Amino acid sequence: MTASSLAPFTAADYRVRMARAARAASDAGLAGLLVAPGPDLVWLTGYAPPAATERLTLLVLTPGHDPVLVVPALEAPDAAKASGAPALTLCDWTDGKDPYALTAELLGPTGTFVVSDNAWAMHLLNLQKALPGTSYASFTDALPMLRAVKDGQELELLAAAGAAADAAFEEIRTVRFTGRRESEIAAYLADLLRRFGHSQVDFTIVASGPNGADPHHEAGDRVIEHGDMVVLDFGGLRDGYGSDTSRTVHVGEPTDEERRVHDLVRRAQEAGFRAVRPGAACQEVDRAARAVIEDAGYGEYFIHRTGHGIGVTTHEPPYMIEGEEQPLVPGMCFSVEPGVYLPGRFGVRIEDIVTVTEDGGRRLNGTTREMVIVD
Amino acid sequence: MTASSLAPFTAADYRVRMARAARAASDAGLAGLLVAPGPDLVWLTGYAPPAATERLTLLVLTPGHDPVLVVPALEAPDAAKASGAPALTLCDWTDGKDPYALTAELLGPTGTFVVSDNAWAMHLLNLQKALPGTSYASFTDALPMLRAVKDGQELELLAAAGAAADAAFEEIRTVRFTGRRESEIAAYLADLLRRFGHSQVDFTIVASGPNGADPHHEAGDRVIEHGDMVVLDFGGLRDGYGSDTSRTVHVGEPTDEERRVHDLVRRAQEAGFRAVRPGAACQEVDRAARAVIEDAGYGEYFIHRTGHGIGVTTHEPPYMIEGEEQPLVPGMCFSVEPGVYLPGRFGVRIEDIVTVTEDGGRRLNGTTREMVIVD
Repeated sequence: MTASSLAPFTAADYRVRMARAARAASDAGLAGLLVAPGPDLVWLTGYAPPAATERLTLLVLTPGHDPVLVVPALEAPDAAKASGAPALTLCDWTDGKDPYALTAELLGPTGTFVVSDNAWAMHLLNLQKALPGTSYASFTDALPMLRAVKDGQELELLAAAGAAADAAFEEIRTVRFTGRRESEIAAYLADLLRRFGHSQVDFTIVASGPNGADPHHEAGDRVIEHGDMVVLDFGGLRDGYGSDTSRTVHVGEPTDEERRVHDLVRRAQEAGFRAVRPGAACQEVDRAARAVIEDAGYGEYFIHRTGHGIGVTTHEPPYMIEGEEQPLVPGMCFSVEPGVYLPGRFGVRIEDIVTVTEDGGRRLNGTTREMVIVD
Repeated sequence: MTASSLAPFTAADYRVRMARAARAASDAGLAGLLVAPGPDLVWLTGYAPPAATERLTLLVLTPGHDPVLVVPALEAPDAAKASGAPALTLCDWTDGKDPYALTAELLGPTGTFVVSDNAWAMHLLNLQKALPGTSYASFTDALPMLRAVKDGQELELLAAAGAAADAAFEEIRTVRFTGRRESEIAAYLADLLRRFGHSQVDFTIVASGPNGADPHHEAGDRVIEHGDMVVLDFGGLRDGYGSDTSRTVHVGEPTDEERRVHDLVRRAQEAGFRAVRPGAACQEVDRAARAVIEDAGYGEYFIHRTGHGIGVTTHEPPYMIEGEEQPLVPGMCFSVEPGVYLPGRFGVRIEDIVTVTEDGGRRLNGTTREMVIVD
């Protein structure tokens, strides 16, 4: 992800987010937040270093203090250009200096700090060593919902990303599948996502025939044949916000069984969607979708959770999974994507991004969920 | 990085590497290694999941036991296709199960484990919670040199990557720079790296005029002018192994000062290279290069370490930096890349990858280190 792909939020927006995050930490009895390069840092500051490296870059948010970004001197000029830079203080360090000692001074000797899930273990271990009186928890454990509720501008960006993914599907359904490799269709899907404004393509799953029974099969050399089911699951980032949609198409006329399984998944997806409302627990969405598939006797073939959140990444909390009791809140955005996977034969998955409204849910994908027949 | 971009090592090669790693851990008094998706996992197994995620994937190497790869069930079919898969046991877990409890059983209740630098902090915190009697150290702290000494096949791959980067430089020096944006030259450099066999481009720095004084300036909208110095620093992965080279070119005739600074950096690079020999400490390479620049009165303008290792990544131990007493060993590969950065004016950096031989060093880049004049 490059700076130019990010949404046009202002320093004021980032100041509000950082203050909200510090307050959430304080309310949870935490001493502060340690934010590593990646989606948390993008969301809080607009700063996306070209790569996470062995050199420590860390945003320190402690209630009652101004935000500080610890950054290698080499990268300080780029960091200073981030949209959120006016809302924080840069604290740079040069090669040969100890960035953990520097960070330790900002944290103080005790307290529990919450750290980005994807922070490097090496950096965490060095902080634990520098500050033996402190303790740490991951964002997912301590503040899982920090980025989960989207504001109006974020919802618009997610809707625009969803519309772009839908446009890519409308185009791909018109091309010839028979006789082409999965990887060719996948490459064209990636081109389409970019053509419709994506700056980053995260995945373009094209899983034909028996490959469809592997939910994370990407796209390979298999030549698609007449009579194949083909799972398409694709997404990425557009203006810094994610898309993720799945449709399962059929090459030529399906068999009765294929129709039945596709319709089963469609009904499960519908049931999951209808379970979305403020106050419902995440696991209720999973249960609603799963019940449809279990009642039809296919429960053992639905081998993953029903959904995951989406925002500045294509995979984040909240998770629609048994055991997740987090209540849904208006503005949350996540996938509803049940599937059935018949080993050695075929798979079906149907996925929309859904946002929680005041009285239910709203889909951010709008292409047909009926089975599309392709050539 | 995709599986297809990886070097053609066999399961037997990976078995040897995993055994060597377990022995190194044992020799260092460690209870085992925990290897996360990324360069360590690629090097030890050939397995590169499409992305590191919140779902735990972890190779567990404990002396006296067969290697085990803990992997999400969704990704197990892909993991089973990795070249190193025949040399390990897959242990998959499905959504809703606790992968940390599963891993804890493999580790046992006590001992110090070494964990990949880039493992997610969240996964480490969950292991620390599951096994309060264990302790952890990063690869860089406990076994920094595990991947540092390259074997013959690895050296060939690094040399081929270096030759490809050299070919890209020979081509780029013939194009017109005047009047073109840095970003255009950078895009062409990336194309050239791919044309010469790179599967992944990690960076294409084009830093013209005053931008050259920022060592990590990437490439921007600035239009290159006649009279500019331009730092070019580019690299990526070819057949799974890295390239990284820098040359500083001048658009039209340089001034006397520009010539003098370029020649100073060239001599510093030469001095760093000449300090490479088995048994010399890494910091001696840094000192040798730095002394040339300090003696000329430009010490304060050389604001980074002299080099970093390279292998399955373009940035890894050993580091050529003051304080690093690790002795050089034949087969180690790293950059020697001094620079001088004059704020607001221009910068110069010259970089070769060097490997340690039985009696000195050998450059893996061969383009001229004299200043090249471009149009």
